[in-house]
Amino acid sequence: MNYSTLPDLILEPMVRAALMEDLGTYGDVTTRAVIPADTTYDARINAREPGVVSGMQIAEIAFRLVDPTLKVETLVPDGGKIAPGDTVMTIKGKAASILSGERVALNFAGRLSGIATKTAGFVDKTAGTETRITCTRKTTPGLRIVEKQAVLHGGGFNHRYSLSDAILIKDNHIAAAGGVRAVLEASKAVASHMMKIEIEVDTLDQLAEVLEVGGADVVLLDNMDTPMLSEAVAMAANRVVLEASGNMKLDRIAEVAATGVDYISSGALTHSAQTLDLGLDF
Amino acid sequence: MNYSTLPDLILEPMVRAALMEDLGTYGDVTTRAVIPADTTYDARINAREPGVVSGMQIAEIAFRLVDPTLKVETLVPDGGKIAPGDTVMTIKGKAASILSGERVALNFAGRLSGIATKTAGFVDKTAGTETRITCTRKTTPGLRIVEKQAVLHGGGFNHRYSLSDAILIKDNHIAAAGGVRAVLEASKAVASHMMKIEIEVDTLDQLAEVLEVGGADVVLLDNMDTPMLSEAVAMAANRVVLEASGNMKLDRIAEVAATGVDYISSGALTHSAQTLDLGLDF
Amino acid sequence: MNYSTLPDLILEPMVRAALMEDLGTYGDVTTRAVIPADTTYDARINAREPGVVSGMQIAEIAFRLVDPTLKVETLVPDGGKIAPGDTVMTIKGKAASILSGERVALNFAGRLSGIATKTAGFVDKTAGTETRITCTRKTTPGLRIVEKQAVLHGGGFNHRYSLSDAILIKDNHIAAAGGVRAVLEASKAVASHMMKIEIEVDTLDQLAEVLEVGGADVVLLDNMDTPMLSEAVAMAANRVVLEASGNMKLDRIAEVAATGVDYISSGALTHSAQTLDLGLDF
Amino acid sequence: MNYSTLPDLILEPMVRAALMEDLGTYGDVTTRAVIPADTTYDARINAREPGVVSGMQIAEIAFRLVDPTLKVETLVPDGGKIAPGDTVMTIKGKAASILSGERVALNFAGRLSGIATKTAGFVDKTAGTETRITCTRKTTPGLRIVEKQAVLHGGGFNHRYSLSDAILIKDNHIAAAGGVRAVLEASKAVASHMMKIEIEVDTLDQLAEVLEVGGADVVLLDNMDTPMLSEAVAMAANRVVLEASGNMKLDRIAEVAATGVDYISSGALTHSAQTLDLGLDF
Amino acid sequence: MNYSTLPDLILEPMVRAALMEDLGTYGDVTTRAVIPADTTYDARINAREPGVVSGMQIAEIAFRLVDPTLKVETLVPDGGKIAPGDTVMTIKGKAASILSGERVALNFAGRLSGIATKTAGFVDKTAGTETRITCTRKTTPGLRIVEKQAVLHGGGFNHRYSLSDAILIKDNHIAAAGGVRAVLEASKAVASHMMKIEIEVDTLDQLAEVLEVGGADVVLLDNMDTPMLSEAVAMAANRVVLEASGNMKLDRIAEVAATGVDYISSGALTHSAQTLDLGLDF
Amino acid sequence: MNYSTLPDLILEPMVRAALMEDLGTYGDVTTRAVIPADTTYDARINAREPGVVSGMQIAEIAFRLVDPTLKVETLVPDGGKIAPGDTVMTIKGKAASILSGERVALNFAGRLSGIATKTAGFVDKTAGTETRITCTRKTTPGLRIVEKQAVLHGGGFNHRYSLSDAILIKDNHIAAAGGVRAVLEASKAVASHMMKIEIEVDTLDQLAEVLEVGGADVVLLDNMDTPMLSEAVAMAANRVVLEASGNMKLDRIAEVAATGVDYISSGALTHSAQTLDLGLDF
Repeated sequence: MNYSTLPDLILEPMVRAALMEDLGTYGDVTTRAVIPADTTYDARINAREPGVVSGMQIAEIAFRLVDPTLKVETLVPDGGKIAPGDTVMTIKGKAASILSGERVALNFAGRLSGIATKTAGFVDKTAGTETRITCTRKTTPGLRIVEKQAVLHGGGFNHRYSLSDAILIKDNHIAAAGGVRAVLEASKAVASHMMKIEIEVDTLDQLAEVLEVGGADVVLLDNMDTPMLSEAVAMAANRVVLEASGNMKLDRIAEVAATGVDYISSGALTHSAQTLDLGLDF
Repeated sequence: MNYSTLPDLILEPMVRAALMEDLGTYGDVTTRAVIPADTTYDARINAREPGVVSGMQIAEIAFRLVDPTLKVETLVPDGGKIAPGDTVMTIKGKAASILSGERVALNFAGRLSGIATKTAGFVDKTAGTETRITCTRKTTPGLRIVEKQAVLHGGGFNHRYSLSDAILIKDNHIAAAGGVRAVLEASKAVASHMMKIEIEVDTLDQLAEVLEVGGADVVLLDNMDTPMLSEAVAMAANRVVLEASGNMKLDRIAEVAATGVDYISSGALTHSAQTLDLGLDF
Repeated sequence: MNYSTLPDLILEPMVRAALMEDLGTYGDVTTRAVIPADTTYDARINAREPGVVSGMQIAEIAFRLVDPTLKVETLVPDGGKIAPGDTVMTIKGKAASILSGERVALNFAGRLSGIATKTAGFVDKTAGTETRITCTRKTTPGLRIVEKQAVLHGGGFNHRYSLSDAILIKDNHIAAAGGVRAVLEASKAVASHMMKIEIEVDTLDQLAEVLEVGGADVVLLDNMDTPMLSEAVAMAANRVVLEASGNMKLDRIAEVAATGVDYISSGALTHSAQTLDLGLDF
Repeated sequence: MNYSTLPDLILEPMVRAALMEDLGTYGDVTTRAVIPADTTYDARINAREPGVVSGMQIAEIAFRLVDPTLKVETLVPDGGKIAPGDTVMTIKGKAASILSGERVALNFAGRLSGIATKTAGFVDKTAGTETRITCTRKTTPGLRIVEKQAVLHGGGFNHRYSLSDAILIKDNHIAAAGGVRAVLEASKAVASHMMKIEIEVDTLDQLAEVLEVGGADVVLLDNMDTPMLSEAVAMAANRVVLEASGNMKLDRIAEVAATGVDYISSGALTHSAQTLDLGLDF
Repeated sequence: MNYSTLPDLILEPMVRAALMEDLGTYGDVTTRAVIPADTTYDARINAREPGVVSGMQIAEIAFRLVDPTLKVETLVPDGGKIAPGDTVMTIKGKAASILSGERVALNFAGRLSGIATKTAGFVDKTAGTETRITCTRKTTPGLRIVEKQAVLHGGGFNHRYSLSDAILIKDNHIAAAGGVRAVLEASKAVASHMMKIEIEVDTLDQLAEVLEVGGADVVLLDNMDTPMLSEAVAMAANRVVLEASGNMKLDRIAEVAATGVDYISSGALTHSAQTLDLGLDF
Repeated sequence: MNYSTLPDLILEPMVRAALMEDLGTYGDVTTRAVIPADTTYDARINAREPGVVSGMQIAEIAFRLVDPTLKVETLVPDGGKIAPGDTVMTIKGKAASILSGERVALNFAGRLSGIATKTAGFVDKTAGTETRITCTRKTTPGLRIVEKQAVLHGGGFNHRYSLSDAILIKDNHIAAAGGVRAVLEASKAVASHMMKIEIEVDTLDQLAEVLEVGGADVVLLDNMDTPMLSEAVAMAANRVVLEASGNMKLDRIAEVAATGVDYISSGALTHSAQTLDLGLDF
């Protein structure tokens, strides 16, 4: 177990629910109707395109829940790079069991590997800088934990998991609270020592005010162009952590990283990754 | 309630779980820290790009679960077409409640509207034919029911929901059972009168065998090129329903529909749709 | 695993809930109070009357959940015929564990074997015909899946599992939709290729109209006498599947089957079967 | 609320689960396909045969969960007597909602009214005596609470609900503990002042020993003929409560009650009641 | 398994929920960040103060759920006495797993051992009498079952577990029902033979009335001083079980027990026990 | 809603579970047996001793879940100070409903008000300083969220909620990772910008090393005497937040606060608070 591995205890309910969703009321009727009970398979999950895998731990859990007698071996662990044709997992045992778990394993692994791969693409563009790539809360309902894990597998970092993990002040909060000073004072008054405070700014004037008032651990620089980001980095002078956000597409990452911002965040890592093509072969 | 509307009873547990995921252990700490308790909003969900909406029923449930006193009005119901700038929903009431429900509502609506929009794009290509567009089981774990609903909202049709809904015989089943005749006989022996039987074929010879043996309601024509599909349509002569499948990209739909196949299925409708850009404005 | 066996994954939550119901807040207090901890039993579930067993898989799960160290062996699998005195299962191990699981195992097995046995009685009456026996949705709330499975164990077939599995048009639907033609058109417009359409008719005139309009896969002949059923079979001429329903008591099955209808459905299979007498002996 | 009414809070999860079971993955497709959204019904649940109703509270909950806007009125409350043709409940509102809740409401009400009716039949036979009718733990898995409630509705009394509610010593317990004295001493040593102790005896000698040792609140007289029951009543002389059990069929109840036993228990009240015929008319 | 041991099946959901609460969304990030994956521990739970242990069964379940490969050995079972420095449990295996389960195991064991120890203190004061110590329903929400079990481990007895386990008539009930006679008659009319009836009295006159009317199994003597309790014992003359209640602090137990009451009940056993200091050492 | 108020959506499942625990299988049998259905109460929750209330929001939810028609009014909101005799809540409506919800409401409110009151006692001792009081993870399994909320109501602050909320490096982590520098480097490598890092030190030498290496947001000063704490404050010179921990009893708080540490943490706030005496009067 390392930082990018979750306890099985946490993942099992999600995988179990997905299996129940796919098995339906009474399971895989086709397989039960036509596959002889003693048929066994020596199956492999193979990569059909290059990328970074995520979801192998989940796929293992899926096959084990369907049938504890299956022999599952992960050849490429979560976070590993793959080329087309690579075998990432082998599953041996009853054909009926393998067929019953196949779709859930692949639906998870395809989606999560897509996120890991997209993240890795962003991370590659930051090479030679200290800038880190991070995700947002724009995740698939119900799958946030594994999608955020996939970002880690791709070499990225995680933003807060939920609304209760940290204070993140946006423009509406500033407006309702009566300005930057008021909102930061209100936040410091309730935030304990274990909770970070981040505030979103749209202009350098706002940034200056945040720096003057103090109390923010992180400043989110929203929708700024590259020169403005560079100026913000200079203004902040390492007094706060800077996160650049807003339409951070792949082709812009290198130049944004070069400005010296600490983090670049992108909702597209989770909400618009393409499924990575993985297939089960027998 | 019509065919593309689900009972709230069915949707509520999923929405509740998504809210708990996003609220985290103890809710929206930022809003509670800085927004005065009596602040109210007159908020709108607006379209930032054209498409077909799905997830409005879910967004309504989300805001209602967070705070039953919110006044929510859906201006464009699920399945409706939208242009950039269109307001699809208005939400009036406590600012804290609206901010707490925002991300869940948008995460659902963005993803599902993306699926509905992608489906509608496919459906448009079938204009002037009888061909229908249908999805697969390549859905997001935990969200199959609402993703399949989004396909309906886009004008498509649903394939089976789960492994227990119908018999769908694939190449592995044929191999394990000992051939087309054996697999169809085994299927007919157990399938009741309320269960459909579909069989996948890769070649016209296989199709011929299926037609000869009988018992299949639907034949899935896998990875055939367009001329072969035309030939299959001719061979079948309306004796079975034909479903064309395998790498059915948007630019190929019109010519496939022109062959006369009854259904075109695509996993990409659900696994690779782009999120539709919807935003909450105050 | 074959067609009449469900994955343990699907059955376990139901069995676990039943055990919790019977164990109550803090378990079998009598046994804990008076049975020495090291007492072991060599127990047998024996048949007290003839029939067809169902619920053996469930009984096994029940004993295993109570105590994974129990040795359970099923001598007569689900679907097997039994005579009075036959031992259907042996359970060896801690007395306290066996006594704690006894009632749940027997409550399931007695009820389900009753259904299987009643079904087998109906099936016997169809000997020499192609007619199949099928159940309805008149099942015990919470137990539909295992009661429908018991029908399979008795040699019967399953009707749809739930309201979402197929379109089944009844007289109220016809009335509300504006007649047979309207209701069938509406159904065909939304039903995908994997969903069956069945329509209930009370008269031969209605049957004629259904056949003329087309689109129904199955016609339910409701409350018809035997001569009328024969006439319906002749009219349909194999163009649709015919299901005879309505007060189908055991003594009428043979003559109804002789008419040539494809299916005979009976709610009594599930809602009015007598418990089969099975007992645990030590 | 009186003694035979359960809090809705307790019943709702069971009713909700039953609705989900019957609605299936995506609800009543037939109704959604063919019933116009604005169709309303003025429906009635009518008795088709005489009996005692149970399940009305549950039916109300079912219709309310499906659609809170339905107007439901119970005309004959749980425990009430009905004659054929009596209307026991009226439901007014959206046709689609009524049709979606119909089967669950009737499946519960039919089964539970069957139990209440069977119980009432037993109770009638005890007229003029102090003898009470009681049930056992031979209930349908998952439905114990409502089946025991139905026994109350029929005028009966409830035995313990679960293995943790009371000490009930059977022959196996006596054997394992080393005899009547040992088992009663062991029971008294752990049973608190709020827990009853019952012991099963097969012979009058055993009864004598139980009376001599003391500590039992109730003695279960198992499989005794009527003269032996009379003798037991004389021996006990009101020092313990007596429960007659074992094959207590309806035609024997009057004579058993006449012996003066306090309770007659019968598993058949719950495991072998016939469904009472109730129907929904529009 | 003996009377003060619960089936694991009953305890597991509670322990699992507690682990999920403590692990949070994605587990022990510190341990995953800094502990090498191959680090193992040879850990011990040691007593830091004297007392009676409870919660060992739960601690075992906690470590097993976190990691089934951990080797856990309980040296002092639930109900055992401990002195400072005693090792009550050893846990060997992956360091990361032990650290992840530590807090839940200790939070349960510390709290429950505190209850067992407090109970044992009360029980010690009853030495030489027949008086038993019992708890109330003043337990921690969600933990009643294990807190009542801890009372058993301390040598006490359990009062009813819930509002449905027995009839316990308090002053409000008497007032609403119209007096002692009315309330006892109403209770006897509905209570079956397996349900105890207890009634609370504040005065000896009330006690006299209860004894005269009959029907109560137990009388709760509320807030009486010691002489009055003695008088009550004399009046009752073993016709009912007597329970003394109301501000029963430790220093009063001996003299109350000496009056001859059968039970002394105290809410403080569960609601005000101090956590027993147990620590995990490596 | 403000910072110390949780969304009802989050609290309801916990309150519902507690009600089910207390109602038991079939609810409050005493009340149903003896309280006339039309009896109403005008009840009040009154303080029997001084303190700070917590659990009023939960008590409201409890009474509403039992019976939505009850009229509940909170007179002293969570966090309010109370004197003996103060009425904190009024509940009007059906007697049976109030009696059914009473124990759960009081069990929560008594325990949580005890925690709030104990916390307020600690907070009072810090008057005139900037030092804040904070809790730990030594909470009651299943109740962490409401116990931490009670700490807020008492004027305290919350430490991390779970193992996934922040990195908190203890002595075992330092040892396993190979020293202070190694453990901080490992932590910084994986912690994102929204996650705090805290490290525990036992000596001033360790503190010096932590300050030199950098990367820690908070330093936990474990089991230091007051002079050493003062020295630590001087050494840190506001470069990190300082938390004093280890046997922080009430009588020591004032002098520890005077050293200038930022936080004082105490597990006893949650694991050893006495229940506050609140009672329901009619």
